[in-house]
Amino acid sequence: MTVHASDTASEAASHAAPADLVARRIPGHSLEAPFYTSDAFFRLDVDAVFARSWIFAAAEAELPEPGDYITLTVGAYSVIVVRDDDEEVRAFHNVCRHRGTRILNDERGSVGNIVCGYHHWTYGVDGTLLHAESQPPDFDRSCFGLRSVHVRTVAGLVFLSLAAEPPADFGEFASRVEPYLAPHNLARAKVAKQIDLVEHGNWKLAMENNRECYHCAGHPELQRCYFPLYNFTENEVPPGMRATFERFQKADAEARATFESLGLPYAAIEELVERPTGFRIEREPLDLAGESFTPDGKAAVRRLLADFPTARLGHLGLHLQPNAWFHFSADHAVLFSVVPLAADRTLVRTTWLVHADAEEGIDYDLDTLTGVWVATNEQDAVFVSRAQLGVSSPAYAPGLYSPTESQVESFVTWYITRLTAHLEGP
Amino acid sequence: MTVHASDTASEAASHAAPADLVARRIPGHSLEAPFYTSDAFFRLDVDAVFARSWIFAAAEAELPEPGDYITLTVGAYSVIVVRDDDEEVRAFHNVCRHRGTRILNDERGSVGNIVCGYHHWTYGVDGTLLHAESQPPDFDRSCFGLRSVHVRTVAGLVFLSLAAEPPADFGEFASRVEPYLAPHNLARAKVAKQIDLVEHGNWKLAMENNRECYHCAGHPELQRCYFPLYNFTENEVPPGMRATFERFQKADAEARATFESLGLPYAAIEELVERPTGFRIEREPLDLAGESFTPDGKAAVRRLLADFPTARLGHLGLHLQPNAWFHFSADHAVLFSVVPLAADRTLVRTTWLVHADAEEGIDYDLDTLTGVWVATNEQDAVFVSRAQLGVSSPAYAPGLYSPTESQVESFVTWYITRLTAHLEGP
Amino acid sequence: MTVHASDTASEAASHAAPADLVARRIPGHSLEAPFYTSDAFFRLDVDAVFARSWIFAAAEAELPEPGDYITLTVGAYSVIVVRDDDEEVRAFHNVCRHRGTRILNDERGSVGNIVCGYHHWTYGVDGTLLHAESQPPDFDRSCFGLRSVHVRTVAGLVFLSLAAEPPADFGEFASRVEPYLAPHNLARAKVAKQIDLVEHGNWKLAMENNRECYHCAGHPELQRCYFPLYNFTENEVPPGMRATFERFQKADAEARATFESLGLPYAAIEELVERPTGFRIEREPLDLAGESFTPDGKAAVRRLLADFPTARLGHLGLHLQPNAWFHFSADHAVLFSVVPLAADRTLVRTTWLVHADAEEGIDYDLDTLTGVWVATNEQDAVFVSRAQLGVSSPAYAPGLYSPTESQVESFVTWYITRLTAHLEGP
Repeated sequence: MTVHASDTASEAASHAAPADLVARRIPGHSLEAPFYTSDAFFRLDVDAVFARSWIFAAAEAELPEPGDYITLTVGAYSVIVVRDDDEEVRAFHNVCRHRGTRILNDERGSVGNIVCGYHHWTYGVDGTLLHAESQPPDFDRSCFGLRSVHVRTVAGLVFLSLAAEPPADFGEFASRVEPYLAPHNLARAKVAKQIDLVEHGNWKLAMENNRECYHCAGHPELQRCYFPLYNFTENEVPPGMRATFERFQKADAEARATFESLGLPYAAIEELVERPTGFRIEREPLDLAGESFTPDGKAAVRRLLADFPTARLGHLGLHLQPNAWFHFSADHAVLFSVVPLAADRTLVRTTWLVHADAEEGIDYDLDTLTGVWVATNEQDAVFVSRAQLGVSSPAYAPGLYSPTESQVESFVTWYITRLTAHLEGP
Repeated sequence: MTVHASDTASEAASHAAPADLVARRIPGHSLEAPFYTSDAFFRLDVDAVFARSWIFAAAEAELPEPGDYITLTVGAYSVIVVRDDDEEVRAFHNVCRHRGTRILNDERGSVGNIVCGYHHWTYGVDGTLLHAESQPPDFDRSCFGLRSVHVRTVAGLVFLSLAAEPPADFGEFASRVEPYLAPHNLARAKVAKQIDLVEHGNWKLAMENNRECYHCAGHPELQRCYFPLYNFTENEVPPGMRATFERFQKADAEARATFESLGLPYAAIEELVERPTGFRIEREPLDLAGESFTPDGKAAVRRLLADFPTARLGHLGLHLQPNAWFHFSADHAVLFSVVPLAADRTLVRTTWLVHADAEEGIDYDLDTLTGVWVATNEQDAVFVSRAQLGVSSPAYAPGLYSPTESQVESFVTWYITRLTAHLEGP
Repeated sequence: MTVHASDTASEAASHAAPADLVARRIPGHSLEAPFYTSDAFFRLDVDAVFARSWIFAAAEAELPEPGDYITLTVGAYSVIVVRDDDEEVRAFHNVCRHRGTRILNDERGSVGNIVCGYHHWTYGVDGTLLHAESQPPDFDRSCFGLRSVHVRTVAGLVFLSLAAEPPADFGEFASRVEPYLAPHNLARAKVAKQIDLVEHGNWKLAMENNRECYHCAGHPELQRCYFPLYNFTENEVPPGMRATFERFQKADAEARATFESLGLPYAAIEELVERPTGFRIEREPLDLAGESFTPDGKAAVRRLLADFPTARLGHLGLHLQPNAWFHFSADHAVLFSVVPLAADRTLVRTTWLVHADAEEGIDYDLDTLTGVWVATNEQDAVFVSRAQLGVSSPAYAPGLYSPTESQVESFVTWYITRLTAHLEGP
């Protein structure tokens, strides 16, 4: 069959207003091209999604001591996340209240006070302006504290919201997921490795890629230890994966018995679409030895995250809207987050956590710990860059998601819901 | 005389709508600055010219066997040009019908089927979707073939059109030029070399540069073998070129006698302005030995393209709107095409063809074959980059073409005609 | 105190028209973000400020002989500044009148005529078109001279204006500053060194940085020889600088006596806001040996600029709107100018002048001569880049200038006045 591309639709899309494109999105289909390629949507995504939602910022393990900080870039925002002297995690805009200079310019570090290097305005780690030289007598320091950013922690994970009024459902989200996460003891973890990868594609293509395993044949390392059956119903399992599916069913039965015996919550909760803080959580078996994301499925870290009686706990998977996902196994946790840099560039940050007392070279080999996801991330970066190139063609038209891509559909529907709410205004 | 630049005109131009700038173009003058510098015209040029015309894509010699393909980028389009199993040349948009991924990511290669590496959707070289895993029962593969692109071949040259309804005059163009081209036997040629050069200027400046030899004093290598008298009438020949002109007149008389005796069409046909597929063709003598574009004018390739009784056939020159030109001599052909990359960046592709049985190192030396045009292209790239810098100045105002620049005027007039037609709509 | 950033103001700013942002600027406060970050203001700044004002172009010492030229880029403009055969300095747009090609492509050089390398149109150093080949009989060369640019020299400094009607107050400015500058004898100077530095910030942030010494603790090298008390009143001097202030008072009294005895004008004239050619000039002492910008304050050049009886002349400081500042000491002069390259990139050019007969390696060591300002420029580049990052955050809001930043306020007020005048039109 010969289909000559009529470019009418795609040309019309490139001239359509974002609000019209949001309104006419057809469920079950990938988005029209401007969502992925236009500067207008890049700005809208930052304003309507990243500046309005709760977003994963860091592990508490990245800020072990008072004064420890990271700086986080979200669009044009830069945020300081710092542990204050009371050991609380605080967040501030990284913008001096004098003439607007970016204050902290490293990705992480430790400070006594937060001092702007330009004119030496000095703030406490609680954000108050402590000192500003050569000001007139009526200068009121209390009006010039750092602008704060909402921050919350859940079981060792730090979340922030740039919104003046963050989504109110965070507490409910936290209470639902905390029982799953708490046994992994992240409060006693340390960072074994963090890698930032810049993908040459829109952040939503990076998220869509994360939300299906239809492409997992492209991940040979991951596919050895991870059952690549994510979102497949029995009917959809391709013929070549029947043996894997049967192995999964056996492992799943065994794993559930283990989870039950240890009192570890495992049942899937999937509320990806219906709430601002959309999430999905489930504990599932792994393949091979069933312990970790390693070539043989065995634990990569001898010292487990907690005092588990067995390392064979599969992985606890957590998916968050808009921009993060996590895997917790007995021996380590791996945290992923996605930050838009431009319409066609996205930062993917991967952080591996292990027990605070685990020693590299003794309790774990770093390459073994990180190898599977390092390889997988690089493969995904290629997929995302090719997706970006493809949807940029005027010949691209939205395609149909297959049944195994239901979480992609959930992500896109959640996203469209956020944009619609933002465009309608308060 | 002192002229103080009033920037009124150029400032007005930078704020004018493209349609107004098209409408007010003054014949005989170079275009106003935004045509060369603005993103709006870059997009318009792709939409109105490159996505509407027939454009030169490749030599058939680049696709000798079934499954051989090239990928061609035109603006944001990527097109697969492939020889199918029936040895026909076919073209498709390089966009997977699933979620839009770019499928083939190399510039050329050979395939059995066209397989998207993301989710393994598999298409035949005729574009039909052969296989897509994990789809619902009602999935109709026949609705998801690759979108095809119009393609035509003429005497070994492949042309494509991205338009839904390509210009209808292609057949007439083909029938006019085929008798000139056919004796050069390109169906039996092979690619000796292909070079891609990125020029830092608008594609129209690259074309305008090609369409006059007023600047040929800047091409010392070319000027040795090529009579730099292109479009000069006898009156316009500068004093320093009188001797060259007289040598040309003598060579021209001899060449015409040769062309007549061999039955080679040589008369100029110039229909550059009046048709969508504007072209100019003429066979002319070369200087020195008169055989080829080499330092001494002798054939660069011992094995000629066809069974010619003499190598002294000068060159057959073909100019096409919007973006290609060609020189065919007895021993080789050299093909040039221009693709806009951005308002200020342009790809110039040069391809040298020789007889399929000619052996490098035995029948030809590659540096001798390519040297003159490699040097000339590099010189032109400098001219084009300086033209781009100059027209970007607010002090630039359109200048007058001289009589020897009549083909530049033809190119610009053809271009304005295409834009006018596009802006008026169907 | 916790201040949650309401982004309403900054979002509104990013959508506001430039004219509205100009109109609502609040005196005493830094500018809203789009002034520093948007392409619209970059273009407006070039049109309303750089293409309308008198701007510093070069030292006459850069053009010692007839035919010597520099090319200067201002936004998209390129200007040739050349010494003509009558030894007058002339300026022309660097755009060929044929098809607009940039003619001279080096930063400096020497020519007999000004020849466009594309089609060899040949202009005299007075701008007249001398020769253009292959033109029709009615071609009138006198209509195609280079477009000239207004140029003026003051005591060895060259200024140009791209405006059709430059600000009329230049003569008054010249007559006010010439008595201060003339004793430094720049007509007999030569260029010892010129350095171009690209700062990653808006040009106004580079200027604002220049107009205060509130940040001078960040310049340890400069602070040794230069009293970092610029614009501080006695009340505002920070406790840590009391000793410096007292040293300054003593040096100032001595210096004034020297200036008086030598008949050197030294009193401050400050007309930074009220005129198109805003300026400030004052002669002041230096610290340590008090002679020059060197680690020990001693003259860097043994051969002084003029026949001064002592090298202990401090420095004559000249500040110009929109984009230059200068320091003249007994032994050398250092000239700074700022040219916008993009909304977030700025060229800072620094030129050191010494007596024409001073020999490097004998009369001066180049590193000693340039070291203090090279270090200071690099420190300022970091401040400017951090200011750019900070004001780009949606959380940035204009801040209050302190009393010591009064010249920053003057610069911004002058700038807003220029934009207002431009937007109101003639």
